Amino acid sequence: MGLDENLENLHAIDREYRHLEKAVAVLQWDQETYLPSKGVEERAEQLAVLQRIAHERLASTETGRLLKDLGSSHEHPSGDPELPSIDRDFLKVMRRNYDRAVQLPGDFVSNAARAVGLSQAAWAEARRNNDFPQFLPHLKTMIAIAQKKAEYWGFKRENAYDGLLDSYEPNMTAQDITAVFRPLQDRLVSLLRHIAAQPQPDNSFLKLDYDTNKQVQFNRLLLEHLGFDTNRGRLDISVHPFTTSLGFDDIRITTRYFKNNLLSSIFSVIHESGHAFYELGFPRELQGTCLADGASMAVHESQSRFWENVIGRSRSFWETLFPKLQAYFPEQLQQLTVNVFYQAVNYVHPSLIRVDADEVSYSLHIILRFELEKQLFSGTLAPEDLPEVWRRQMKDLLGVEPETDADGVLQDVHWSMGAFGYFPSYALGNLYGLQIRQRLLRDLPNLDELIAQGWFEPVHHWLQDQIYVWGRRLDPAELLSKLTGEKLSPIPFIEYLEAKYKHGTIDKT
Amino acid sequence: MGLDENLENLHAIDREYRHLEKAVAVLQWDQETYLPSKGVEERAEQLAVLQRIAHERLASTETGRLLKDLGSSHEHPSGDPELPSIDRDFLKVMRRNYDRAVQLPGDFVSNAARAVGLSQAAWAEARRNNDFPQFLPHLKTMIAIAQKKAEYWGFKRENAYDGLLDSYEPNMTAQDITAVFRPLQDRLVSLLRHIAAQPQPDNSFLKLDYDTNKQVQFNRLLLEHLGFDTNRGRLDISVHPFTTSLGFDDIRITTRYFKNNLLSSIFSVIHESGHAFYELGFPRELQGTCLADGASMAVHESQSRFWENVIGRSRSFWETLFPKLQAYFPEQLQQLTVNVFYQAVNYVHPSLIRVDADEVSYSLHIILRFELEKQLFSGTLAPEDLPEVWRRQMKDLLGVEPETDADGVLQDVHWSMGAFGYFPSYALGNLYGLQIRQRLLRDLPNLDELIAQGWFEPVHHWLQDQIYVWGRRLDPAELLSKLTGEKLSPIPFIEYLEAKYKHGTIDKT
Repeated sequence: MGLDENLENLHAIDREYRHLEKAVAVLQWDQETYLPSKGVEERAEQLAVLQRIAHERLASTETGRLLKDLGSSHEHPSGDPELPSIDRDFLKVMRRNYDRAVQLPGDFVSNAARAVGLSQAAWAEARRNNDFPQFLPHLKTMIAIAQKKAEYWGFKRENAYDGLLDSYEPNMTAQDITAVFRPLQDRLVSLLRHIAAQPQPDNSFLKLDYDTNKQVQFNRLLLEHLGFDTNRGRLDISVHPFTTSLGFDDIRITTRYFKNNLLSSIFSVIHESGHAFYELGFPRELQGTCLADGASMAVHESQSRFWENVIGRSRSFWETLFPKLQAYFPEQLQQLTVNVFYQAVNYVHPSLIRVDADEVSYSLHIILRFELEKQLFSGTLAPEDLPEVWRRQMKDLLGVEPETDADGVLQDVHWSMGAFGYFPSYALGNLYGLQIRQRLLRDLPNLDELIAQGWFEPVHHWLQDQIYVWGRRLDPAELLSKLTGEKLSPIPFIEYLEAKYKHGTIDKT
Repeated sequence: MGLDENLENLHAIDREYRHLEKAVAVLQWDQETYLPSKGVEERAEQLAVLQRIAHERLASTETGRLLKDLGSSHEHPSGDPELPSIDRDFLKVMRRNYDRAVQLPGDFVSNAARAVGLSQAAWAEARRNNDFPQFLPHLKTMIAIAQKKAEYWGFKRENAYDGLLDSYEPNMTAQDITAVFRPLQDRLVSLLRHIAAQPQPDNSFLKLDYDTNKQVQFNRLLLEHLGFDTNRGRLDISVHPFTTSLGFDDIRITTRYFKNNLLSSIFSVIHESGHAFYELGFPRELQGTCLADGASMAVHESQSRFWENVIGRSRSFWETLFPKLQAYFPEQLQQLTVNVFYQAVNYVHPSLIRVDADEVSYSLHIILRFELEKQLFSGTLAPEDLPEVWRRQMKDLLGVEPETDADGVLQDVHWSMGAFGYFPSYALGNLYGLQIRQRLLRDLPNLDELIAQGWFEPVHHWLQDQIYVWGRRLDPAELLSKLTGEKLSPIPFIEYLEAKYKHGTIDKT
């Protein structure tokens, strides 16, 4: 077969694989949004069948043969240097996906999937009962599986955690991350101390009764305000907010509603919209290929947190939107100034739960988890000691200590799924996001005015031209370097927070 | 391999096939309810991939070998007579499914699936725009695909329509159906004439403004009243009401809402609930097998129309429910008696839209479509002439003529899906339904009291024990014979209607 034919055949496998993955995404989305309670068990069977078939397609000997014939190898994943760059990028990502898939034996994959199922159920139960020992044996199994997986991927025992990190953040090691998290931690702890010494804004009005139907209606307006194209996506309700791609033109986000928490649904809608904009912005030529994907988990998170924090927690944003929010909740908000609301939105106060954390303390929650994961995989921390170490380090880092493990080590789903190495992406996303903002301000110095006008077109275009256009063609480091000429750095993020919370960008009127 | 092992392996294929089919159902349900408009094209691709894989699985040489080793052949589908009857029924249905599948080439199946996706989207658009020519090329494609399918199934060109009919109603030919439709048509036309000569009830209040949110709320109460278990199913909104099985414990129905049509959503909810009760009532031992299915489309329809008409259009039903409906719409309904409402619900007046038709004229809508389908497949009617012939025959049969194609030939989704031969099931369902009612009244002579009390448990149990329990183990004729000792007949249906509408079951107080 000729080169063109080989390429087309490899694309056909990729397309079919992706269609199966999108079908999986539809079933999973449905499970989180609309599935009747008694349909859960059979849904798991349906998903297992689809996932097995998808894995078989990707890890087939045909895929391996085509990659080889196209000159792609583990050492030279992009194949023939004469190929157009988009084909070389395609081969690079296909090689990575194939290698990752084919190195895991089928039995291992299905046993791991079954163990994850049991582990997630045990975790949910243990969290409800505040009973860490109930979850402990499953946690140990998850750690053993993750270690084995890293081993299959060719990582030595002492580098197992690097292997896991690499699956979320390509070419990033624990050492690299430690190097940026250290100064980040120092400066954040110091900033938190500074803020704690200031008078605190009154945000008690956020906990009044807010009719959830009206919250739903406001979020419709919010989506339109942000420029979310509802012909290419939708917003639904789920227990945990998420974004998922059900197709190139079908990106869905979810949120959740609490009567006594006005900000929860609003900020998760802005956050998930940031993820969705990324997915919606991939160039059409990448449709149906493995390149129509984010550069990494952290780069994806940079987009969601850019919209949530840089835009959504800015004064300009609420100058336009607060009067509209007031119109939905006149009783609760009419007598407040936009400034009071802005301060409440930016209320900084260390607390126990990661997903409810403010933008200053958030990254410290991540650093805690990262440090614990490193120790778990280096063997210096035994899983049974986690609750106690968690409490101690929370106290050290954030000055608060959970009374229960449910509010401590059991709060997040990730470890019960064996997703070790995922957490750092959240904090890295903060860092990337602010490096990107710095670069964006060079081209759009009037960003604040645009936000105040609710005119996001220039922002969407800039992000599209500079970031979305690459899909997964560039690694995070390549993308950042092309964009800023820099390496990953915590400084822009820290300086942004210090400017905002230390040097008085927030008026205390 | 031993017999048990062969059976287990065949069950494994069937289970996987059904998981894939349910995944297809999830994607299709989503397409009709929540899919963003621009996601339609890629969804068609996703469905094509899943349907091709499902087809490959069912039509594999492994399936054929296992069937053969288990003694099943085209002539003796149930295999070894010594086998337990449930295994023989399983083999019979597997043989039928396998034979139907293996005769269709994989390429044909996936191309057809893709074409259906596009055709349905084009139909929806054409209907919105009242633009038949926009749909015409897709309609021609659908006809060509159906013809080709019948040919693959071994039907000669002149019998293509029999081949299609057989796929919905086993062993039923166009000639058989014509034989029951002829007397049905005569008696219905004559009954309609009789009714038209009587004074007509005033039902203009049904076209007042009825807030659709309140309709949604009432339907929630209605589902509960009927005994629909929302832990095993749900109600959503779609352009065209339907019922679909996404899993043994996940049966979903849809309806649609019109502000100026109070009855439309209510009666489609009752109708689709009837379908859902059938699906929800299959015995647990059939889960994950091809026997967890209706006996035929018409038997399925007998269930929906039994609930919609025999129960839902009875006076007793509304004696309980009308006060509750009044509470939702006091302004529009407070001053009416239940009798006025009952008469309005049973207002018989030929009209344009099948799904809104009264129970007397409904079957004539079907006979129209059946006659047109016969002509389309015998080649005596060209697709481009459909709108005109539709108008003429509506005039002949029902005395009304649509002003737009949206209210005429474009009103139903079926042809856009290539589901030719499906329509007759609806009228056959009416006939089965009334034969079943006759039998049910022997065991539950107090049916009317039960309905008046809103106590449907005995009805659910009877239907479950007599009908649902069989799943697809019996053919429609076998089921009817076991139940009533009779063959399919239009007489109980006609006599029911004549008793109700001619001999004064309706009080004109």
